[in-house]
Amino acid sequence: MTDSTRRQAALDYHALPTPGKLSVEVTTPAQTQEDLSLAYSPGVAEPVHEIAKDPEAAYLYTGKGNLVAVISDGSAILGLGNLGPLASKPVMEGKSLLFKRFANINSVDIEVDANSPEQFIQTVASIADTFGGINLEDIKAPECFHIEETLIERCPVPVFHDDQHGTAIVTVAGMLNALEIQGKQIEDVRIVCLGAGAAATACCKLLLAAGARKEQITMLDSRGVIHAGRTDINAYKGEWARDTEMRTLDDAIEGADVFLGVSGPNLLSAEQLGRMAPKPVVFACSNPTPEIKPELAHSVRDDLIMATGRSDYPNQVNNVLCFPFIFRGALDVRAVRINEEMKLAAIDAIRSIAREPVPDSVRAAYGGVELSFGPDYILPKPTDPRLLPIVAAAVARAAVDSGAARLPYPQHYPLQPL
Amino acid sequence: MTDSTRRQAALDYHALPTPGKLSVEVTTPAQTQEDLSLAYSPGVAEPVHEIAKDPEAAYLYTGKGNLVAVISDGSAILGLGNLGPLASKPVMEGKSLLFKRFANINSVDIEVDANSPEQFIQTVASIADTFGGINLEDIKAPECFHIEETLIERCPVPVFHDDQHGTAIVTVAGMLNALEIQGKQIEDVRIVCLGAGAAATACCKLLLAAGARKEQITMLDSRGVIHAGRTDINAYKGEWARDTEMRTLDDAIEGADVFLGVSGPNLLSAEQLGRMAPKPVVFACSNPTPEIKPELAHSVRDDLIMATGRSDYPNQVNNVLCFPFIFRGALDVRAVRINEEMKLAAIDAIRSIAREPVPDSVRAAYGGVELSFGPDYILPKPTDPRLLPIVAAAVARAAVDSGAARLPYPQHYPLQPL
Repeated sequence: MTDSTRRQAALDYHALPTPGKLSVEVTTPAQTQEDLSLAYSPGVAEPVHEIAKDPEAAYLYTGKGNLVAVISDGSAILGLGNLGPLASKPVMEGKSLLFKRFANINSVDIEVDANSPEQFIQTVASIADTFGGINLEDIKAPECFHIEETLIERCPVPVFHDDQHGTAIVTVAGMLNALEIQGKQIEDVRIVCLGAGAAATACCKLLLAAGARKEQITMLDSRGVIHAGRTDINAYKGEWARDTEMRTLDDAIEGADVFLGVSGPNLLSAEQLGRMAPKPVVFACSNPTPEIKPELAHSVRDDLIMATGRSDYPNQVNNVLCFPFIFRGALDVRAVRINEEMKLAAIDAIRSIAREPVPDSVRAAYGGVELSFGPDYILPKPTDPRLLPIVAAAVARAAVDSGAARLPYPQHYPLQPL
Repeated sequence: MTDSTRRQAALDYHALPTPGKLSVEVTTPAQTQEDLSLAYSPGVAEPVHEIAKDPEAAYLYTGKGNLVAVISDGSAILGLGNLGPLASKPVMEGKSLLFKRFANINSVDIEVDANSPEQFIQTVASIADTFGGINLEDIKAPECFHIEETLIERCPVPVFHDDQHGTAIVTVAGMLNALEIQGKQIEDVRIVCLGAGAAATACCKLLLAAGARKEQITMLDSRGVIHAGRTDINAYKGEWARDTEMRTLDDAIEGADVFLGVSGPNLLSAEQLGRMAPKPVVFACSNPTPEIKPELAHSVRDDLIMATGRSDYPNQVNNVLCFPFIFRGALDVRAVRINEEMKLAAIDAIRSIAREPVPDSVRAAYGGVELSFGPDYILPKPTDPRLLPIVAAAVARAAVDSGAARLPYPQHYPLQPL
């Protein structure tokens, strides 16, 4: 396909058969006058009274409990930058499509035109109770940190900024599997993180929770190593400042075990890769062009395990391995938040799926290539049907065990098969 | 059915087969990795770029153009009062169901928890561009007037408070048909409006636009006639203050041609009805108990035409005769607002349908009773399939002719058959 054919195929996909990718459908009988007198006046007064008496009844009589809002201000759309709320709508509708496709969650997109983070927060907090959960999306750093923290405090339902935590969960799952294959312990490895935005800091936080040591993590932004002498950084970056003489990626990469790139195209050179420790792990997640191309990386050294954000190479770091299922689990036990225990449970569940033989359907979809745990298969494929039951169940269990759930663990799982 | 059976049937309807009445479904292929690369990254970047260049492209590549938000703060839920936003959710989901059922419009509900009208306005204005239109619902008077006026100014899409204008359009359509049958001209009739809330004032405004004379309209609130000497009324009621000696319904009803009740149960007595002019028109729209029961009214006099809000009597004033189709017409020509011309066109179209023979399907659904233009059939039945093509087309045409439309009148209509 030429670029122009590909471009037209993408536009046609969005324009046909009707504009957009979603519809709202009626799930109850709605033909006769009698049907309508139950769906609307006068019958609808009964659930209204029940919810007025007990807000939890909204989960019984409305769609709230299986409804997630995908909300953005369009300030950091994919890798495209701040194009405004309306331009982000195809992405948010796409995210809603993925919620439905992978976890049978009803999802609607909301684009917020806000003048300030406070106005964005106020808007989302005001409408939050409409939904069973809120997925924040494509909001630029550092505003996204304060926005998410405040909304988690203020909203009665789970709030999850997928660009931070979804990315982090899948990255850490893949990285732990890669380190295991390389025979390294997370506690021992030296990690270089190129990038200091929302995804980078969330990944490093979750690496700590998974056992990494903070003094072994060197984070770099566009001006170089984040060190104790830097005066040009905000508090969120400041958390990662090390007392070190290292100033550049050239300094930091020497002998590093792990390179995590959440930055831009071609920023890791072949020479730099060559100076990493034996058996390195390289996650080059810049999209569509990674920090180093897999072909180049593998030509430099044959002892590395590599992951990218792309579906046309092995080991794609794809958020869809996580967000539909972490919300599925959270909704199924009516969790009040998505906590660290639930995130770590998701990591373990995703890791475990990659170690088991893949179903024939998945192997067939990938042209019959062998997909077995190893350097070229550290993460499950997005279309693997085991993700829903295994990841969602692990998350629901962790929510119950950590006290975040308002319902007991369900007797049968999953509750909402596809 | 007993009350308790009816109550349980309404609750079951909302709880089964899944909680609520709506689902979100995917309209495009979404199974394979290739499908998903068009629906989401990287393909989705193409429509994003198009919309960033030209916001109108959102109507081509997203669902915006066929998406209406039903938004409430829950401050005046049906006749039940201020029960808060969450308790209003079953009603708002019901409204979304009606949008889909009657006009194939995708619709989502948003419940807003706002501390003030200004905060409500700010919230709705911030998210408005997500949708092709906004239907405000169940917001108490007098706040609803300022809220709607301000949102019409601030939102880039049509905003319509159905409790005001939908009610008014259907009421005026029925009333004009009733007056015609009674052989009276709207310009000549004396009108008593019992009630001074959102629906009442919207009805009276639209009666003026349809030809009624302001000095012939007497409006009453719970304290009696709204007259020039009243100092206890807000500016919205003040517009209707008459320079008159009349103080009570007893005074006002004497010789009146039209009674419009938008107030409460049993507030019009048989004696008062008896003192109206010959051939009166009585719209007793309080729900579920009208201002006077039809059995009682007909026992008092046999020259009246009567309408209520109930489906179990003839001549139901039901908003569903209007709102799905006025939005359908507005969306189909991408109207920037819903203006008076479009409302009057809707009135004419609804009136015209009642004059034509009903389709067999409608007659059959009503037990084969004769439905022909006359005292017991002044308004179409909600399930009449002619409403969509005729009302929506009339509204679209009026939008184009009045300069409110951004698209020309479509060659084929309706664009979205059921």
